[in-house]
Amino acid sequence: MEINRDNITDWLKKLQDSICLELERADGKSKFAEDNWVRKEGGGGRTRIIKNGDVIEKGGVLFSAVHGEAPAFLFKEQQHSAVINKELGKAGKQPQFFATGVSIVIHPQNPWVPIIHMNIRYFEMDGGIKWFGGGIDLTPHYVTEEDARFFHGELKKTCDKHHASYYSKFKEWADDYFFIQHRNETRGIGGIFFDRLNENPEMNFAKNFNFWKDLGTSFAPVYSELIRRNKNKPCTQQNKEWQLLRRGRYVEFNLVYDKGTRFGLETNGRVESILMSLPKTAGWEYDFKAQKNSEEEKTLALLKKGIAWI
Amino acid sequence: MEINRDNITDWLKKLQDSICLELERADGKSKFAEDNWVRKEGGGGRTRIIKNGDVIEKGGVLFSAVHGEAPAFLFKEQQHSAVINKELGKAGKQPQFFATGVSIVIHPQNPWVPIIHMNIRYFEMDGGIKWFGGGIDLTPHYVTEEDARFFHGELKKTCDKHHASYYSKFKEWADDYFFIQHRNETRGIGGIFFDRLNENPEMNFAKNFNFWKDLGTSFAPVYSELIRRNKNKPCTQQNKEWQLLRRGRYVEFNLVYDKGTRFGLETNGRVESILMSLPKTAGWEYDFKAQKNSEEEKTLALLKKGIAWI
Repeated sequence: MEINRDNITDWLKKLQDSICLELERADGKSKFAEDNWVRKEGGGGRTRIIKNGDVIEKGGVLFSAVHGEAPAFLFKEQQHSAVINKELGKAGKQPQFFATGVSIVIHPQNPWVPIIHMNIRYFEMDGGIKWFGGGIDLTPHYVTEEDARFFHGELKKTCDKHHASYYSKFKEWADDYFFIQHRNETRGIGGIFFDRLNENPEMNFAKNFNFWKDLGTSFAPVYSELIRRNKNKPCTQQNKEWQLLRRGRYVEFNLVYDKGTRFGLETNGRVESILMSLPKTAGWEYDFKAQKNSEEEKTLALLKKGIAWI
Repeated sequence: MEINRDNITDWLKKLQDSICLELERADGKSKFAEDNWVRKEGGGGRTRIIKNGDVIEKGGVLFSAVHGEAPAFLFKEQQHSAVINKELGKAGKQPQFFATGVSIVIHPQNPWVPIIHMNIRYFEMDGGIKWFGGGIDLTPHYVTEEDARFFHGELKKTCDKHHASYYSKFKEWADDYFFIQHRNETRGIGGIFFDRLNENPEMNFAKNFNFWKDLGTSFAPVYSELIRRNKNKPCTQQNKEWQLLRRGRYVEFNLVYDKGTRFGLETNGRVESILMSLPKTAGWEYDFKAQKNSEEEKTLALLKKGIAWI
């Protein structure tokens, strides 16, 4: 069967369905509520939000598929591609684009359960441009080596099934991307991140699609396991206050650096869908210093690029 | 007496002292703690933070005076000035700059007391560039017309003493600046904002300095009055939740749009001083809708540009 935007879109919708079901099962109390929205210039989305659960305080699993005339910045962004320069350089031809994806952010109640983020996307533009992008990364409020090894181990397994270089390459990419420059710390323990995946001559489109699908499919079992391990851990007032500060850093990253967020806000995207990534509550304290040998200090020491978790 | 960077700096330090004293008096419980810091390339600052007061939950009154070689962006930013092009176009001459100011953000405990922000600054650069900038603006969690009229009325009085056009011009400037584009709402009820105040040929340097000093001096009595009026108002759980959402908007403005914040973060400024503007806690709710005819709805309707409060 030919792989095209229609069956890629169908696959993403089914992924959204199954992830929502598995997260509801893991939560045990709350259900997702759905908002359908339409994009004036073409396409739309299905925003699903869960809140006030036993496990999940606030989270979203979002599907969208949009298309139309490529805005100028998008056209420009693709100009590294030789193809587009040849095909689209001709005057009077306004390139068309198509983009679809699933985005997830989950903020748990218990600070011992990590925040998780996934985005997988597929992009097409006139001139023969088509690529996959995405990634999964983890932001534990408290970094535990056992969970970090499990998380990276699962990502590596998914990558290794498809290409020997993918895990190390995409892990480094995530370290670089999910970095809070002004704090000189990573947002969490990273994961994998990749973009424009169709440029490796030894990989073909169908193989890339399979890797990308495997990554999407791995989300629910990996996060369910992390929930299972941590949801019943007792938590103190100090743990809750630390969670607020870590969420504050999450907000800083998303509003100051995250390209998807900034791009969405600047191009008049659907604000409520874009900012679903923000936690129900977050906090800031002037010049916070972790106590010597505390769990908080241990975590801060692990928010660095380049840690080899496995 | 000649007005120069030394006595401008001295005046700002005394202003910081007196504002801190008056805020401590208005709070009645907490005192400011001071951090002195040094800028490697020249100058430094005196960051004063107050927290967990009876009235003030988290706030800062910051003084700084920095100088040195003007970074490229600063040089570029001033190139609208004819003077600098003439004087500094010569090869091999690295322009020097000097900047000093006092910045304040106060987040109160009681949602009926408004958040307030003031910044007054003085800037010099080789080539004869010197100007004053600043403003005071108010972000009530609940907009009450009585307080808004009082606040704008006091600002207008200060402006009118110096120039008939200042209030209307600088009020419009604040409306345009303190605007959350992606929400299509103002951050609060505005106030006044101005920059590069030395370009009006009918005003001289000494007159501008006097206006600017009057503005700085007006801060403490104006905010003390707003505290006095509102600090003992009873507040419900719903009021506290709304306060979190309004603080969330404040965070969005500061991290996405505020030029000072973004500039500071991008140029490796002192992060803890820059981000002192963020509240102790903030919140986000997906697609929040105010109830019909509620106080929250009334406030949302007043977060617009161009309201003539007086």
